[in-house]
Amino acid sequence: MRWVGNTNELNAGYAADGYARTHGIAALITTFGVGELSALAAVGGSYAEHVGVVHIVGVPAKTSADAHAVLHHTLGNGDFDVFAHMSRDISADQAILSSINSAPAEIDRLLRTCWVRAQPVYLGFPTNLVEAQVPASLLDTPLDLSLAPNDPEVEDYVVNEILQLINNATSPAILVDACTSRHRVVEEVVSLAKLTQIPVYVTPMGKSSFDEQNPLFAGVYVGELSNPKVKERAEKTDLVISVGAILSDFNTGSFSYHIDRVKFIELHSNYVKIKLASFPGVQMKPVFAKLLPKLSQRPLRDGPLCPVVAPPFIDINGPILHEYLWPRLGGFLRPGDHVVTETGTSSFGINQTRFASDVHAVTQVLWGSIGYSVGACLGVALAAAENSPKDRVILFVGDGSLQLTVTEISTMIRHKLKPILFILNNDGYTIERLIHGPEAVYNDIQMWKYTSILDTFNAEKSRTYKISTAGELDALLKDEQFNSADVIQLVELVIPKLDAPSTLKKQAELTAQYNAGKKSSS
Amino acid sequence: MRWVGNTNELNAGYAADGYARTHGIAALITTFGVGELSALAAVGGSYAEHVGVVHIVGVPAKTSADAHAVLHHTLGNGDFDVFAHMSRDISADQAILSSINSAPAEIDRLLRTCWVRAQPVYLGFPTNLVEAQVPASLLDTPLDLSLAPNDPEVEDYVVNEILQLINNATSPAILVDACTSRHRVVEEVVSLAKLTQIPVYVTPMGKSSFDEQNPLFAGVYVGELSNPKVKERAEKTDLVISVGAILSDFNTGSFSYHIDRVKFIELHSNYVKIKLASFPGVQMKPVFAKLLPKLSQRPLRDGPLCPVVAPPFIDINGPILHEYLWPRLGGFLRPGDHVVTETGTSSFGINQTRFASDVHAVTQVLWGSIGYSVGACLGVALAAAENSPKDRVILFVGDGSLQLTVTEISTMIRHKLKPILFILNNDGYTIERLIHGPEAVYNDIQMWKYTSILDTFNAEKSRTYKISTAGELDALLKDEQFNSADVIQLVELVIPKLDAPSTLKKQAELTAQYNAGKKSSS
Repeated sequence: MRWVGNTNELNAGYAADGYARTHGIAALITTFGVGELSALAAVGGSYAEHVGVVHIVGVPAKTSADAHAVLHHTLGNGDFDVFAHMSRDISADQAILSSINSAPAEIDRLLRTCWVRAQPVYLGFPTNLVEAQVPASLLDTPLDLSLAPNDPEVEDYVVNEILQLINNATSPAILVDACTSRHRVVEEVVSLAKLTQIPVYVTPMGKSSFDEQNPLFAGVYVGELSNPKVKERAEKTDLVISVGAILSDFNTGSFSYHIDRVKFIELHSNYVKIKLASFPGVQMKPVFAKLLPKLSQRPLRDGPLCPVVAPPFIDINGPILHEYLWPRLGGFLRPGDHVVTETGTSSFGINQTRFASDVHAVTQVLWGSIGYSVGACLGVALAAAENSPKDRVILFVGDGSLQLTVTEISTMIRHKLKPILFILNNDGYTIERLIHGPEAVYNDIQMWKYTSILDTFNAEKSRTYKISTAGELDALLKDEQFNSADVIQLVELVIPKLDAPSTLKKQAELTAQYNAGKKSSS
Repeated sequence: MRWVGNTNELNAGYAADGYARTHGIAALITTFGVGELSALAAVGGSYAEHVGVVHIVGVPAKTSADAHAVLHHTLGNGDFDVFAHMSRDISADQAILSSINSAPAEIDRLLRTCWVRAQPVYLGFPTNLVEAQVPASLLDTPLDLSLAPNDPEVEDYVVNEILQLINNATSPAILVDACTSRHRVVEEVVSLAKLTQIPVYVTPMGKSSFDEQNPLFAGVYVGELSNPKVKERAEKTDLVISVGAILSDFNTGSFSYHIDRVKFIELHSNYVKIKLASFPGVQMKPVFAKLLPKLSQRPLRDGPLCPVVAPPFIDINGPILHEYLWPRLGGFLRPGDHVVTETGTSSFGINQTRFASDVHAVTQVLWGSIGYSVGACLGVALAAAENSPKDRVILFVGDGSLQLTVTEISTMIRHKLKPILFILNNDGYTIERLIHGPEAVYNDIQMWKYTSILDTFNAEKSRTYKISTAGELDALLKDEQFNSADVIQLVELVIPKLDAPSTLKKQAELTAQYNAGKKSSS
């Protein structure tokens, strides 16, 4: 464990989230009141998107709380419970330690919950217990991180139903979503696909949870926003095995799945749904464990399933357009890369990038907190550096989003991390321009000198690039020194103001209709 | 009204707070979920310190909420009420508009509450009502912003008790605190002092609410952390008329008032306390209105009361020390100046600065959110520019605090504001070093090139200075062009790592004891 020291609490929360997405769990430490409230938007994101973060809050000594003292960092009304209360709906569990005797058991309970539920927990740690000692022998019993068993009768029933549906299906599909990785069934899905030879689609939130170089990979399915060939094949299916789904608007092309609900098996961390029947409490991981041995190997399929989308021919002296950028990026990525994309333009664009094997994607499709990616990138970079010095971390963030959290680049420099930071400079909040008010002043931002950022934050070794044409981009992506990622690098990509991935343009139209209440959600 | 457009929501909340402290009320607009949660630490501060901010939250259309749709910016669990719930304990009132028929009355109610209670209110505004129209005739009835009357019998009783105590006192004192300005009794206090010739002390939170050039001004009272002469005189009193007190640790020298509780009259916005008797619901403003005409003019005192603290003699080639900086600043300030000081070193130091008349101070002593001052400075600068182009806005912020909210300087530049930004570069979190861990790595920060900040944020016209000696500081504070504040200016003050105002050093010792639970709060 090491202390990071972020530039602010929100960024720290995003960094903890990014680290936990990569290594399974992380800790965030803030002070009471002011500090913890600043981090809530990050903790809320971890809760929504199933990321295990232990939020440790340094709270006043119990004597102060009992006296209702008017301390700094409080509301001045003597209420010391209000802040934990504000976190309750975004915590899987909470504890405020009050006695050193009960503290170890409470901490163990929180850690278990955080890991098993893959959601944040809240631990209030009073100043007067910081240096208290507990018996080392407590460490002799390892933490129990196993799942509670499913009801065996219900589990058997569910497994048999699924088995029957798979055996009877003629054109089944597997749809990999966010909780596949979060609830640790990535390997189970690989085994399921390998045995049954069923094509595997991923949602935007599931992207990188299945190897895109595997011949069974069939593309990114986002309802109406899918590649037409992917959509056509996916929607012809007679059975969808949906794994770890979070069916949010941006994850489904605004709820535009054209597949009948009765064709779905939904596997979740805490329930299973088969057609229209729900099985509450049945956890998917043990279901996989019982199901997989009952499946027999089907004959291997011929050739890859996913349509190839090559970068279009472009004018090398012309501007950098999204239709070129994202497909071109596929050829740049290599195994071991971690790609962090900001909500908005980049998180839509990345769905048009075909990943190499062993590429790890981090983005925030459901919670969609602007600025998330910069903090998350720090956390991913810390985790990646622990994996292997060869792992590259690559960030895509728009100029508008960067303004919220730019200071976390300073923390990357401080820890001598070496991410590649692509800043998409399109002069404002392009995703918002597309939804509402393309010329509205509230979508404008102050134009910064992005190429001065690394120097202002005092990077000792760094490289900065400003790129305006497709040809320059192509050359940079081929450049050996750039590819080596031996120092922190910042690339300002100058992009036309209203250019966007075609899927984002469609999504923006759907969202604008939705916001105006002109289209219902059902 | 104008749209500002901040770099992030927390900064926007701080800016709204700064604007409201200067002009009485402000509005903060965020999106639902992600956006509003990012602002909670700022809204919490406005709640704690009695600042009226209308927090307008753009929420999904009612059709979406009713359908429990899994929209982006939600927790994905269909719960659309959770975020308003998280704001409940830091809102004086809340409304989520649901019908255009009831909307005007609900908005009026919130505005009234925000103004009268001088605390934040929460207004959920659904997307489908944004363009709905209401009758213009509703504007014919002006908002009722008057206080509800006190119970006349209790009020009379209270006024007579106060009158009697004042008439019988031999060495009374007035103690001006935070809510004097927040609940708009600044003029009443001036009249009370003028009529009775009672010396007026201010607390750190009350500083600048009474003219420090008025001969009746007797100094800053902070218990044990006061100037010894101020402390001696203040504690000899036989009656304290305390106005708008918020008796927090940092506002009272860790609760070290050596004055008997039975010598206090406490006047508050929503109760009065005389000796040990409370009068709930009795508001101080109408009490003043009834009390003042009953007081008769006492003979004028001779000469000023406040001890003069001149800057010490210093080595002009030596480092900038706090014992020099803050007293020296007094000679630099002029009427119309607004001084914003960051929690920590600066908010302690400023108590050693004697203000010119009509100087306005903004700081956050109770809530003490690190980074607050930079956002607040933007809000103060927007308000000051509306007052007069001659009003100067002067920020004092440490390097550690600056890292949290530095991007708001970009918004100052965008709006062509011209504050003077003093950055106290003492290489880390000095206040924290004094409390705990002077050499601990968690009190270190990345050293930035502070002199590059204005250029990186693309300021067209600006001046930047880096100052390391007392002599250079003195020369700069005398420089005519610098004093003219005709462009945005940034001054990096290089200060020894562990130097601090003597009062902060004492406070840090008290806080360290307190945190360890070694000293009780009573």
